[in-house]
Amino acid sequence: MAAPDANSAEHRLIATYFAPLAKHPGALGLLDDAAVLAPPAGCDLVVTVDAIVGGIHFFTEDAADMVAKKALRVNLSDLAAKGAKPLGFLLTLALPKSVAEPWLDLFARGLGSDAELYECPLLGGDTTRTTGPVTVSITALGTVPKDTMVRRSGARTGDVVMVTGTIGDAALGLELRDVVTAAKRWKLDNRFNYHLIRRYLLPLPRNALAEALRLNASAAMDVSDGLVGDLGKLCEASGVSAEIDAAKVPLSEAARAVVALEPAAIQKLVTGGDDYEIVCTVPPERLDAFRAAAEAARVPVTEIGRIKAVREPPRFIGSDGKPMLFKQTAFSHF
Amino acid sequence: MAAPDANSAEHRLIATYFAPLAKHPGALGLLDDAAVLAPPAGCDLVVTVDAIVGGIHFFTEDAADMVAKKALRVNLSDLAAKGAKPLGFLLTLALPKSVAEPWLDLFARGLGSDAELYECPLLGGDTTRTTGPVTVSITALGTVPKDTMVRRSGARTGDVVMVTGTIGDAALGLELRDVVTAAKRWKLDNRFNYHLIRRYLLPLPRNALAEALRLNASAAMDVSDGLVGDLGKLCEASGVSAEIDAAKVPLSEAARAVVALEPAAIQKLVTGGDDYEIVCTVPPERLDAFRAAAEAARVPVTEIGRIKAVREPPRFIGSDGKPMLFKQTAFSHF
Repeated sequence: MAAPDANSAEHRLIATYFAPLAKHPGALGLLDDAAVLAPPAGCDLVVTVDAIVGGIHFFTEDAADMVAKKALRVNLSDLAAKGAKPLGFLLTLALPKSVAEPWLDLFARGLGSDAELYECPLLGGDTTRTTGPVTVSITALGTVPKDTMVRRSGARTGDVVMVTGTIGDAALGLELRDVVTAAKRWKLDNRFNYHLIRRYLLPLPRNALAEALRLNASAAMDVSDGLVGDLGKLCEASGVSAEIDAAKVPLSEAARAVVALEPAAIQKLVTGGDDYEIVCTVPPERLDAFRAAAEAARVPVTEIGRIKAVREPPRFIGSDGKPMLFKQTAFSHF
Repeated sequence: MAAPDANSAEHRLIATYFAPLAKHPGALGLLDDAAVLAPPAGCDLVVTVDAIVGGIHFFTEDAADMVAKKALRVNLSDLAAKGAKPLGFLLTLALPKSVAEPWLDLFARGLGSDAELYECPLLGGDTTRTTGPVTVSITALGTVPKDTMVRRSGARTGDVVMVTGTIGDAALGLELRDVVTAAKRWKLDNRFNYHLIRRYLLPLPRNALAEALRLNASAAMDVSDGLVGDLGKLCEASGVSAEIDAAKVPLSEAARAVVALEPAAIQKLVTGGDDYEIVCTVPPERLDAFRAAAEAARVPVTEIGRIKAVREPPRFIGSDGKPMLFKQTAFSHF
């Protein structure tokens, strides 16, 4: 008689592709009902969940390793913004019948590579069939020293508003994939085109900045639904406003080329989704320390404005000295 | 100007339906990127994830509150089997456009009611669109005193094999919904019919037994993919076998009525999925204490066999004194 679950294809898929990723001893080789962890003493646990769905958050023709990495990285980005160190993650993977094993193999390799890179091992998971598109939900766990998680609610009047990296690339990258004529319209060469598309395909979470945020930022969040709307959420949670100099919002060379040709594109850049940069507020007396820590972590940070005392949405001041008006301030799938 | 995210329907859905469920202070009212928890001192964290998909794990016409409860309960069942006390859960909900707000309202009410009942509050979540069916993934967190999680791998020769409740009802309930003639074939009256269908629709996780398991069981797991296959996994993890007296496997009155008419149905009962009972092994010297604790917890438990020293799949001895042969030992969607 064969082993009792030899005829369970699910069991075989897990053993073949995912058990090798479960390097945390508490994952028990994915051979138990649950993972078990001893949280480090003196630490709080930080927990977040984010899902990506084929046809909604990624293109179904995207390479499987990129899909896996994106799913993990959007969660790592949340941990980074909270100042947390990754501890591990749990995966739910719903697969249509059309997905064959080479896809799964590439998916698992991409996931494993990022799990190593970000030191965030697989702790557990569930693999299931779906009649819909590939759906990947990841729950990421992290730790911070007790009571030091960076919240959205800590911004205070006079704090400096900073963002990492560049803003709006992913929104342009998405348009380049959605609208075949966009590259031509924006006169983008291959290098710029590739840069923008890549930024949509694969976020670069700022986990290297976590400690600098924890030690210096009064508030932070990751920019996933557009800078204007996300900064609005941070201000709302903190009961403050912000005045942002739109000209200071850091743009990539490629995005600057687009704005030079099509000035109205700035709207898309600051309200489009998928940046996975971090917006944070830093008290003026912590600014030098924060800049030094960011430089040591090799994460570019840019000052874009200040927190204001009034309780209202942030204002982005345009080149004409007037607040910009936005049609839609945040990206929403609903 | 409106609030910056007033035009985000997702934000409104979360605020309306899910924020009221986020009663744990660390959930931060679902207004931050992550939840923050101080794990109780001296405890290990137990983490598990399970998803249910419309058309695969539930019928798309099932009432939304039942879908929500099933999604949470299949995870609570894993915590119960590990001896863990629920701490809270994270929710991923992927919704097709066809799902209207009354569905969501009922879903949230069902979820909230079970979160109260099992003392397992919502900690965080992600709501997204899908072009596929409703997909609900839940990550449940629990705690056990340090180093006391009940594993699959602790069964030892001579231990008594026990199961909770009754086995096979959900498999019959599924067939009653799939095959319109089944009720007639099995001559089931309304009460039996309802009992079996209900058992498929809504699991009854055995969280009341968690402490009894932790204090007395050498190994345990929840029975979700069929008793034969799941006990096989437990035996494999423990490097042992088991000899089970098939006649001792506890059946409901309704299931006994089916087997009386159709003796071959026993195959379906012990290999069908969705029982969400617990199979565990108890050293003989802990048996009285386990039985007493189970009785105090009002969870029926039944002795069905013994652990054997050989490393091979468990044997279910039939009424003819011979090991039963199974076509398929475990339920698999793959």
